[in-house]
Amino acid sequence: MEATLPKFDSIFSIDCVIFGFEAGELKILLIERNEEPFKDWLALPGYFVEQNESIDDGAKRILHELTGLHNLPIKQLHTFGEVNRHPQGRVITVAYLALIRIMGQKELTPITHYAKKAFWHPVKDLPKLAFDHTEIFQTAFRRVRKRLNYQPIAFDLLPEKFTLTQLQSLYEIILDKKLDKRNFRKKMLSYGFLKELSEKQKGVSYRAAKLYKFDRRKYNKIFQAELAMEGGS
Amino acid sequence: MEATLPKFDSIFSIDCVIFGFEAGELKILLIERNEEPFKDWLALPGYFVEQNESIDDGAKRILHELTGLHNLPIKQLHTFGEVNRHPQGRVITVAYLALIRIMGQKELTPITHYAKKAFWHPVKDLPKLAFDHTEIFQTAFRRVRKRLNYQPIAFDLLPEKFTLTQLQSLYEIILDKKLDKRNFRKKMLSYGFLKELSEKQKGVSYRAAKLYKFDRRKYNKIFQAELAMEGGS
Repeated sequence: MEATLPKFDSIFSIDCVIFGFEAGELKILLIERNEEPFKDWLALPGYFVEQNESIDDGAKRILHELTGLHNLPIKQLHTFGEVNRHPQGRVITVAYLALIRIMGQKELTPITHYAKKAFWHPVKDLPKLAFDHTEIFQTAFRRVRKRLNYQPIAFDLLPEKFTLTQLQSLYEIILDKKLDKRNFRKKMLSYGFLKELSEKQKGVSYRAAKLYKFDRRKYNKIFQAELAMEGGS
Repeated sequence: MEATLPKFDSIFSIDCVIFGFEAGELKILLIERNEEPFKDWLALPGYFVEQNESIDDGAKRILHELTGLHNLPIKQLHTFGEVNRHPQGRVITVAYLALIRIMGQKELTPITHYAKKAFWHPVKDLPKLAFDHTEIFQTAFRRVRKRLNYQPIAFDLLPEKFTLTQLQSLYEIILDKKLDKRNFRKKMLSYGFLKELSEKQKGVSYRAAKLYKFDRRKYNKIFQAELAMEGGS
């Protein structure tokens, strides 16, 4: 039975939700599209996967072509396969997610014709995006909010050295709520994975705050002990 | 530019990894295929998504057609898009995952010609599966192992009333390690989301053990407090 594959007129694309944190704002990478449909619209960086590349390779290639950025730590988020999500036909898109440090990646230069430009845009004033990209962004943001509670993802977004005020501000933006300063600091420091540095914040007009670093080795040790279900008493 | 979609010869499929726990064994649902390629091979329940259905609808339909089961709580796991994963052409497959209680679903009856039969198979003696289904299973199992540490997924697999021995045995199977009985019990009971019942285990020849129930409301309350980062002192 069934010796050949059915012929469907369907193709795959990838779309990337790349979060960054800069000047106290959570941002995502957007492109301005250069092709119909949605010429001049803002969209997530994304395009069609080629016939002869894996979707993971396609995602890396497309993100590079659209933004000039290399080797972002993208991971699959979710696959969007509603029948009418693309106005021109059946396109199933695999969404990828990454959280990165913005510093040093301000020069975004598309090297392909299908984007006019690429840039960071604040999450809080996001315009309507092309296709179902608003929904894809929302799915990504919900996932990030959820992960914040059990993965150390805040430290992927913060600079290597950060103040507790920056850390709290990032938590507040992602969780969309004000947190009590005293409780937040107490809790964060109680885990033992934040390392207080001897340096202080530089170039601020107000009283310079202490700088901290995230100790991933320590975090893994604490977390692994928890995992092992053998944490003694 | 680009007014129509590129024409690619590619199609989508879905594949399901459905875990159950029965008689002290972790199992997954398999089918025996009835079509080339891989006629008579064991495989995860999966097939092609139709042109006019969403991938989520396709997954529900296909799982029903292959096993007779309705309304399993399947969620997307990961999309597998290697170029040569299917011997007949480019097929990208979206894998779905569910953890369910086996009881009451022993009668598995395919209602489609492309499966000869469907059945539960122990995870620990899994044969070689068709296509890249072994890899898909392994990805799912790793995910389940990881989630066990921060989601109450064990209680999706256990019967409604269970003993702590059953709970520990399930943890040991998923984590693939022996756990210390005293520590495990102490830890599990310390969270406060296990409710001790007045009933005891029935129909056993050895000393009947206490039965417990998972209190999801309480779990959510504890977990939400943690999330809110406002857990007081």
